[in-house]
Amino acid sequence: MLHAVIMAGGSGTRFWPLSRKRVPKQLLNLVGDETMIQQTVNRCDGLIDPSRTWVVTNEEQVSAIREQLPNLPAQNVLVEPAARNTAPCIALAAVHVLKNDPDACMLVMPADHVISTREDFQQGVATAVELVEKQPDRLALIGVPPTFPSTGFGYIEQAEPIPVSSGRAFEVGSFREKPDRSTAQRYLQAGTFFWNCGIFIWKAETILEALRQHEPELIERIEKIASAIGSGHDRQVLEKEFPLCLSISIDYAVLERAQRIAVVQAPFQWDDLGSWQALQRLHGEDENGNTIIALHVGIDTADCVIHSEKNHLIATIGIKNCVIVHTPDATLVADKNDENAIAKLVEQLRQRGLQDYL
Amino acid sequence: MLHAVIMAGGSGTRFWPLSRKRVPKQLLNLVGDETMIQQTVNRCDGLIDPSRTWVVTNEEQVSAIREQLPNLPAQNVLVEPAARNTAPCIALAAVHVLKNDPDACMLVMPADHVISTREDFQQGVATAVELVEKQPDRLALIGVPPTFPSTGFGYIEQAEPIPVSSGRAFEVGSFREKPDRSTAQRYLQAGTFFWNCGIFIWKAETILEALRQHEPELIERIEKIASAIGSGHDRQVLEKEFPLCLSISIDYAVLERAQRIAVVQAPFQWDDLGSWQALQRLHGEDENGNTIIALHVGIDTADCVIHSEKNHLIATIGIKNCVIVHTPDATLVADKNDENAIAKLVEQLRQRGLQDYL
Repeated sequence: MLHAVIMAGGSGTRFWPLSRKRVPKQLLNLVGDETMIQQTVNRCDGLIDPSRTWVVTNEEQVSAIREQLPNLPAQNVLVEPAARNTAPCIALAAVHVLKNDPDACMLVMPADHVISTREDFQQGVATAVELVEKQPDRLALIGVPPTFPSTGFGYIEQAEPIPVSSGRAFEVGSFREKPDRSTAQRYLQAGTFFWNCGIFIWKAETILEALRQHEPELIERIEKIASAIGSGHDRQVLEKEFPLCLSISIDYAVLERAQRIAVVQAPFQWDDLGSWQALQRLHGEDENGNTIIALHVGIDTADCVIHSEKNHLIATIGIKNCVIVHTPDATLVADKNDENAIAKLVEQLRQRGLQDYL
Repeated sequence: MLHAVIMAGGSGTRFWPLSRKRVPKQLLNLVGDETMIQQTVNRCDGLIDPSRTWVVTNEEQVSAIREQLPNLPAQNVLVEPAARNTAPCIALAAVHVLKNDPDACMLVMPADHVISTREDFQQGVATAVELVEKQPDRLALIGVPPTFPSTGFGYIEQAEPIPVSSGRAFEVGSFREKPDRSTAQRYLQAGTFFWNCGIFIWKAETILEALRQHEPELIERIEKIASAIGSGHDRQVLEKEFPLCLSISIDYAVLERAQRIAVVQAPFQWDDLGSWQALQRLHGEDENGNTIIALHVGIDTADCVIHSEKNHLIATIGIKNCVIVHTPDATLVADKNDENAIAKLVEQLRQRGLQDYL
């Protein structure tokens, strides 16, 4: 059976001050009425039952996630005692899934991406599932056809096509690191590259086997955790072993080393919503190039992203190319080109002891 | 006896969103712990008793003013039923003062200027009082020696010196409109010009006589109001006659037409606090040219004025030469050079029916 594994451990700072340590991006409704994790779960509606939907998160977010996803069985929300990147996260989910369903297939995905439509998404997943059900030793990724020469994503180069009954799938030729501008331009023009969007489909047993091969020490610890499930001291073992796991991404740990990787071309629209600027793509711009998600009055204001909660008025005069975000206890005013400095700024808050604003 | 007459009818928009229709600049503590009107009253401490201190304001501010000035007798807060500029305002105060004290001398001043020190202020007032007590037909103004070539103030040119026992006083040579930049530069260099700061000292009887001569119709209406004081229908008469008064400044109505005007050189520091930028002069700037009256964390931020109430964090990245003002229901982000557009912006709020933010 197909299980959804949603990775919701992120606590990025790119949407600060709207996103916070306890309310990161995936718990916000940046696009649409539902939060991003709710959208992620609902995207599987009709394909994967809530009883087969798993979320991996951390202590800080667990209660908010249970609140936002009331239909999920409580035991399906797995808590990492420490952040250890995606390989240990996926391995932890795999052993839980396997306990419930020895023949389980996993659809692994981040909790905070924007995808449309649900139908197209499920179409892409169906192609990947067909592939790994036919060839259970396959590891499948979804690859997104690039729409601009992004230097922020990793790329996957396609090789020979793999026959599937619908959609398109390929052997993976190579993985490419985030490229420079001109390389990205070349990838875009070539038409044979995909963005690696972090959505994976594989048999739980297959990914554990691949990890066993490439990261035996990691998988040894995860197996100790697995043995303790239901023993009464599961938590103790988890808290001892998990933080000792190597912190490594599934891409480095397995995908870039393994054979038999397939890439399925995404038949859906995708956006990782990586910055306030991304909101401009998704919400659109008015005639002055502004994206206004606020009560706003402006004079001579252009190319801005302005966000505030209901009824807080933002007034701007002579402001160009800025991000203005108001929340009840903190307001950000930033040059759009300097968005990357938000992380630095949040680090300053930490250093100055302003914990309440993190 | 000397009476203080504080003109507190202003409802300017220059400090929006901190200043509002009901809480204009004079009711804010922009500089120091006390509000500007409290500072204005306290500046006369030891010189003028609260029983001889009068405030002229409007219906919207009267209760806040009574609250901020609890020592003032309630009847000393005069309410204008309509805004009619300074000449009717001063005439209204004069007739009230005269009812209480037929030989009254008035110290007329705006409620929202910054002056230091109290001692120096009282020294300047003493010089002017000496002058009008010796020559009761005199109208005296305080003139502030210019410190920069301001194009925003009216200027007074000095003529012959008038002997006084302390300080410096002159006949007024001429009044000059707000000059252009090069003229202002010339005035500054000449050393014989003062800024007209709107502080006047004269006998109540003398200013009424001057108004009678230059604006007889205006003074006729004010005298009707005066006759009704204590009659039981004072309010009725005030509300009928006052709005019919010519709307004219005391400068145009009297000062620029009358003889026997004296200017007393201010021996104190003065600032009309006419804009957010003025706060930079008064609060000073840090090493990046920022004036921060807020909890603030900034990266690459310079030449800004940042104001918020306690505990609301303002974070800035790559922001130069801006005014950022946060209040609980509205935030302004404006280019410092475009400050004059605040009035336009407030007008837009009015047109859009956003009354709550005015």
